[in-house]
Amino acid sequence: MRGVVMHAPGDVRVEVRPEPEIQKPTDAVIRLSATCICGSDLWPYRGADTLEGPTPMGHEYCGVVEEVGSEVHDIEVGQFVIGSFFASDNTCEICRAGYQTSCLQREVLGTGGAAQAERMRVPLADGTLVATPELPPADLVPSLLAASDVLGTGWFGAVAAEAGPGKIVAVVGDGAVGLCAVLAAKQLGAERIVLFSRHADRQALGREFGAADIITERGEAGIAKLKELTGGLGAHSVVEAVGTHESLQQAIGSTRPGGHVGFVGVLHDVAITGEDIFMTHVHLHGGPAPVRRFLPDLIQLIWDRKINPGKVFDLELPLEEAAEGYRAMDERRATKVLLRP
Amino acid sequence: MRGVVMHAPGDVRVEVRPEPEIQKPTDAVIRLSATCICGSDLWPYRGADTLEGPTPMGHEYCGVVEEVGSEVHDIEVGQFVIGSFFASDNTCEICRAGYQTSCLQREVLGTGGAAQAERMRVPLADGTLVATPELPPADLVPSLLAASDVLGTGWFGAVAAEAGPGKIVAVVGDGAVGLCAVLAAKQLGAERIVLFSRHADRQALGREFGAADIITERGEAGIAKLKELTGGLGAHSVVEAVGTHESLQQAIGSTRPGGHVGFVGVLHDVAITGEDIFMTHVHLHGGPAPVRRFLPDLIQLIWDRKINPGKVFDLELPLEEAAEGYRAMDERRATKVLLRP
Repeated sequence: MRGVVMHAPGDVRVEVRPEPEIQKPTDAVIRLSATCICGSDLWPYRGADTLEGPTPMGHEYCGVVEEVGSEVHDIEVGQFVIGSFFASDNTCEICRAGYQTSCLQREVLGTGGAAQAERMRVPLADGTLVATPELPPADLVPSLLAASDVLGTGWFGAVAAEAGPGKIVAVVGDGAVGLCAVLAAKQLGAERIVLFSRHADRQALGREFGAADIITERGEAGIAKLKELTGGLGAHSVVEAVGTHESLQQAIGSTRPGGHVGFVGVLHDVAITGEDIFMTHVHLHGGPAPVRRFLPDLIQLIWDRKINPGKVFDLELPLEEAAEGYRAMDERRATKVLLRP
Repeated sequence: MRGVVMHAPGDVRVEVRPEPEIQKPTDAVIRLSATCICGSDLWPYRGADTLEGPTPMGHEYCGVVEEVGSEVHDIEVGQFVIGSFFASDNTCEICRAGYQTSCLQREVLGTGGAAQAERMRVPLADGTLVATPELPPADLVPSLLAASDVLGTGWFGAVAAEAGPGKIVAVVGDGAVGLCAVLAAKQLGAERIVLFSRHADRQALGREFGAADIITERGEAGIAKLKELTGGLGAHSVVEAVGTHESLQQAIGSTRPGGHVGFVGVLHDVAITGEDIFMTHVHLHGGPAPVRRFLPDLIQLIWDRKINPGKVFDLELPLEEAAEGYRAMDERRATKVLLRP
């Protein structure tokens, strides 16, 4: 089958890879209906993360089940399914507490389970995959794909930041995750949503998803602007959807005492001091989003056409043109690229 | 009047200081019934914090109101009162959210309001002070004094760590605050409480306050021991009551994914990396305890003799012997020293 392999920073190829097979009785193999390129795929693409040899890429997926192992009971061949970037049993104590990305049996989707391909193996299929009520109409596929990662991640960011009624929510980062955090905050009933963004197209989608205010300034200037808008106090809830030291500092600085920072950008070279968190009285929580916790509800919201997170995809390409997709995201010509196998 | 002044690391003197006076119409002046030495007073005593000249000491207090300013309406002369180490208006939006130590008008008790003395000025008296139902019997005074800081701080640590029914709670630090965190976790209904401690007397008080298990190991060995006791998962709730880099790392490492770290030790030279908080899925919250939030309930629990936090005082001295009190705490001959003016 055909699949995307990153050979080196900037060197992405679509090539023949082994057909995925059932390796364990709890596995499933699915045929991808759609997959996509993640902001976190840009870290190795830009050389900020080290590659250990040619690496099959992709961890966002939805598609139709083609085969299941002998111990898979809840997922059936022919179902349309969505899963998260970590496989999880969904039965251990940590899963039951809602942290499926820390599942005691978790497996990161990687070689043999990479999603930018025609087919993929999914471990722990019963715990990992959630099926739609029936095969979805084509126009829902982008949103269902978004649920696999960016929507689930933005949603967790908003939940970790305790967005909800009566809360002013600020979102640092206007990529697909940040935009989905805006959507999530709106759904969770936030009183007012502020998006930090300096890109006109992302600002527009942010407003469509529920942001009332846009701040174009960053860092200290951005914090000052947010405080102006919030009676000098800052936001109750701040979602950090970038992952740099600067963006996390901006998120902490934007949060009022007693408020919550939900961080979902993969943290790179971050150093938090006692000063950052002691006198500021912020709550900090985040990490790899336990998307599985939210998937059933998110699928239902999409199925009922109450949310349309698929709008974060502003470029759609055949899988064969994945390299162009990476370039477009790297050069910020696209926010998020959907690939059709 | 007589009061404690720190002139340099290791150099504590009791000397004549100016009588405190009403400076603002919202002030009160109280006569101290008891005061004490805080673990945080040992930072400058040991040279870990810099002193800018001779510094009046003390921020834990209870006593009888002698004078109030013209705008004080809720606190009356003759009442026995307890307050926190930060004065707060208790009316601003941040106070109403329960973060009185980040009050928009907050004042740190310091010169002119230092508590290791015969009398002290308390700013924002109506917001800061809480009166007991009547003058307390003498045997309750140590516990009421403990409510001023160590009990309120340990309590906040337990609340920040979300200690409660069904939770395994671990406490890092067996000083007065850590011991009070054990007491708080018990009162909050924790299922099981584990105290890290290597001092027999503190272990005994920890058990009396509610700890079921004691771990004498520290660092990685301590974490491993805790995981042994918790099915490999770690505690749901961990209170950090020391403030060093090592103790905070121990607290984070002791927490299961999705669990909560409540940190109340004043953080010194701490550096938290993305790795510490991203993949661990812990919640982090803490800072200077908003003791005022808890004071009414804590006073009631003491008044009803349901808790006896005054037991953390294992040495009582006349104020004149404060220097010996500092030495005893520095040399760990005493956990917490009560001073009688």
